[in-house]
Amino acid sequence: MLSELKTLLAEVDDLRSSASLLHWDQATYMPSQGASARGRQLATLSRLAHEKFTAPRLGEILDELESLENELDPESDDAALIRVTRRQYQKAIRIPVAFEAKFSAHTAQIYEAWAKARPANDFASIRPLLEKSLDFSRELAQFFPYDHIADPLIDFSDEGMKAESVRALFAALRADLVPLVEAVTARTPADDTFLRGHFADEKQEAFAAQIVRAVGYDFERGRMDRTHHPFMTKFSLGDVRITTRARAEDATELLFGALHEAGHALYEQGIARNLEATPLATGTSSGVHESQSRLWENLVGRSRPFWEHFYPRLQEVFPSQFGAVSLEAFVAGINRVSRSLIRTDADELTYNLHVMIRFDLELEMLEGKLLVADLPEAWRARYQSDLGLASETETNGAMQDVHWFSGTVGGAFQGYTIGNILSAQFYAAARREIGDLEGQLRRGEFEALREWLTRNIYRHGSKFTAEEIVRRATGEELSTAPYLGYLRGKFAS
Amino acid sequence: MLSELKTLLAEVDDLRSSASLLHWDQATYMPSQGASARGRQLATLSRLAHEKFTAPRLGEILDELESLENELDPESDDAALIRVTRRQYQKAIRIPVAFEAKFSAHTAQIYEAWAKARPANDFASIRPLLEKSLDFSRELAQFFPYDHIADPLIDFSDEGMKAESVRALFAALRADLVPLVEAVTARTPADDTFLRGHFADEKQEAFAAQIVRAVGYDFERGRMDRTHHPFMTKFSLGDVRITTRARAEDATELLFGALHEAGHALYEQGIARNLEATPLATGTSSGVHESQSRLWENLVGRSRPFWEHFYPRLQEVFPSQFGAVSLEAFVAGINRVSRSLIRTDADELTYNLHVMIRFDLELEMLEGKLLVADLPEAWRARYQSDLGLASETETNGAMQDVHWFSGTVGGAFQGYTIGNILSAQFYAAARREIGDLEGQLRRGEFEALREWLTRNIYRHGSKFTAEEIVRRATGEELSTAPYLGYLRGKFAS
Repeated sequence: MLSELKTLLAEVDDLRSSASLLHWDQATYMPSQGASARGRQLATLSRLAHEKFTAPRLGEILDELESLENELDPESDDAALIRVTRRQYQKAIRIPVAFEAKFSAHTAQIYEAWAKARPANDFASIRPLLEKSLDFSRELAQFFPYDHIADPLIDFSDEGMKAESVRALFAALRADLVPLVEAVTARTPADDTFLRGHFADEKQEAFAAQIVRAVGYDFERGRMDRTHHPFMTKFSLGDVRITTRARAEDATELLFGALHEAGHALYEQGIARNLEATPLATGTSSGVHESQSRLWENLVGRSRPFWEHFYPRLQEVFPSQFGAVSLEAFVAGINRVSRSLIRTDADELTYNLHVMIRFDLELEMLEGKLLVADLPEAWRARYQSDLGLASETETNGAMQDVHWFSGTVGGAFQGYTIGNILSAQFYAAARREIGDLEGQLRRGEFEALREWLTRNIYRHGSKFTAEEIVRRATGEELSTAPYLGYLRGKFAS
Repeated sequence: MLSELKTLLAEVDDLRSSASLLHWDQATYMPSQGASARGRQLATLSRLAHEKFTAPRLGEILDELESLENELDPESDDAALIRVTRRQYQKAIRIPVAFEAKFSAHTAQIYEAWAKARPANDFASIRPLLEKSLDFSRELAQFFPYDHIADPLIDFSDEGMKAESVRALFAALRADLVPLVEAVTARTPADDTFLRGHFADEKQEAFAAQIVRAVGYDFERGRMDRTHHPFMTKFSLGDVRITTRARAEDATELLFGALHEAGHALYEQGIARNLEATPLATGTSSGVHESQSRLWENLVGRSRPFWEHFYPRLQEVFPSQFGAVSLEAFVAGINRVSRSLIRTDADELTYNLHVMIRFDLELEMLEGKLLVADLPEAWRARYQSDLGLASETETNGAMQDVHWFSGTVGGAFQGYTIGNILSAQFYAAARREIGDLEGQLRRGEFEALREWLTRNIYRHGSKFTAEEIVRRATGEELSTAPYLGYLRGKFAS
């Protein structure tokens, strides 16, 4: 029975992984005229995977496995497999196939429209489609029980979290973050003009490859390609790929982008191989996943010890640009804090304010308190009040992020800030155990940290929920204290 | 009913095209550790496609469409769709699902074993697997009616051809070819040492891209990547890709390889867009497909007029290598005839002798007259008698080609020589109609030729059989006369 379950799940995984490869190809190498057939192929694979995963036979198998599950150690792989599959199955069967089809057709349509409307700053054309997305998001939520209508959407990516708990978490963070941002931005910002100039793409890429290899990204089980909007994707535990974007005039985007995606990839590459081809063979939640991209990008990658090791190497690659810039100045430059309009360009400190604006606005839209038509103005008002500046265009305003234009309105943003919070909490726990972690970074040694993360987080895949992982790895409940401590230590002085 | 047919066929096409992308990725970019999961994913996609294409519902639909088919113009797309799908369906359902599964598992196993055994010259280890392949090939053939046991295998790739008809065709060709080879190889071969040296990969690639673009390969609907064993593949009519291999020490392998694959790709890119996502949207037979790769590679690409246009450009790219080599010498060099051991390295004239050896030996094996154990010796004997030289190793002997080690024994080789024969027959017909074809090539103009081929061959996809295509395009039956005429004209003097 267990082997029938695994066979069925492997088939679903084969279809989903194939779809992921089709996506990756679309974002990297596909010629322009391949797009329309590719959309159809992706729809077919997704539909077949959904059909197979919601087949009544899977429900029967899971029922029949209940007694076995009760006999097994709950921490065993098999018990976790039955438990997690059942949870996902029971979610999946609540969503009618007809809804899936309608919604995914709509998603393809709004995404394409957004890709054109955003550069043209044409919110008017996208508005009716976004209203439809909002309707679909509400309809989807209503297939599930909830306290707040956003709860089921949040639960899809951060299982166990609810609108109320996220709100409380964000309020706690915000109370300390806002004065900190004010204090830091009142000072003269660090100089970072030396990060702009001309940096050959190939050199940026080669240096980034060197860095991600050094932190442990395994190129035998992955590769790095160029794309427009960088992402990490996985086709099996032996094939976890990252993508990057180079800007010739910006030395850091590719580098920190690569470290960010490599953080996601280290998580996936670190999953125990025996979980392969099951629903357990992926990171456990959006928040925990994001904690790993942010940990490697920021806590490691923007730290002074890290650059004590790598800065001389970077200077060798770009001697004319960095030869005369001190390590101090460089580290200050890559950590420069300034209020800005674009989330993905934001520094560590202001980043969460961007996330909170989106989270609050999507909740208001779902609640029916904010009309899509009024979104641009509401967006501007919140940027003005929270960040002290506002975009004149929707291109750099409410249309800047893909999320609302490629899926549900709701559920996709909270993971970024939860991830930031967790990155510091995990890092603090690792540091307590490892001892001289900074000394190791200074020597370009990442094995102890990666080993700690693998042992406590990566290898488990989705065996445990985010809540369980936090408790097991840190001995604590989710807490903003380590993150605020980290930010204060880094930025307050 | 017709629309239900098309929906079902599009789904099959989506699965097959997805599998093709997984194959392409495996041969171009996949990291080494991705292989085992990729094998599983490919098997799942192939099995699902086969299940869907052999579902009883498809048979019912085809039955119900019979009366519509009888009312339609037989040359209409819809009539052809029903007719060709029925033919393919009736073949597919003869093969038991259990046989498919066993055979494809075996195929994966022997391919992997061959990839190791070939460089190690280890025929002993592959022998029992090849014996199994032969058994499978016989078993497969026996699901079909036949006069000769090879007939069903030949029919898979060259529908309508049989062992007897191929034998007769080859005998006719051979009767004239052998004395011609003897006469030509008795002369001092042309110098081609200037083709060896050091040619930077990137320059070879850029030049090849320029050439394939010039002959009409559309990069908006395709791309060119590196691989070990070059091939053409298609994911939709908007995405037809070619692959190449560069050897730094050989100026021509990448170039003529690219032209060869571009020939295949021009065929697929030229198929009428309204046939998309049906079994009609692909070339009609192995022989006709090969005729196009060989036409562009040889009749166009190794002709003097072609190089009158491109040679000065090649000299610009590699001035130190070709600056002092005349056009005459260059054209003679790329057309040098010499007996050799390796089919894929063979010149135009001796190439068919390699094919005939394989065809005869596989027929003998299928007939039970030649044991697998005796294959290496039989191979050597035939090379000695037909080409006057024999390999000491199986690496360069009976193990050199992938075909017997990745599919059936039988059915895969005859298409190469049929393709050569057809390439000249089509070219002669095009030339009659176009008039000054050589003048156009001399000016680097390929549109009239491509347009003729598109109108007479490409756009039809699989609507017509090879036999019908030959008749429609040339007004003749399949004939070796144009090919022999072409070879004599080119090589006899």
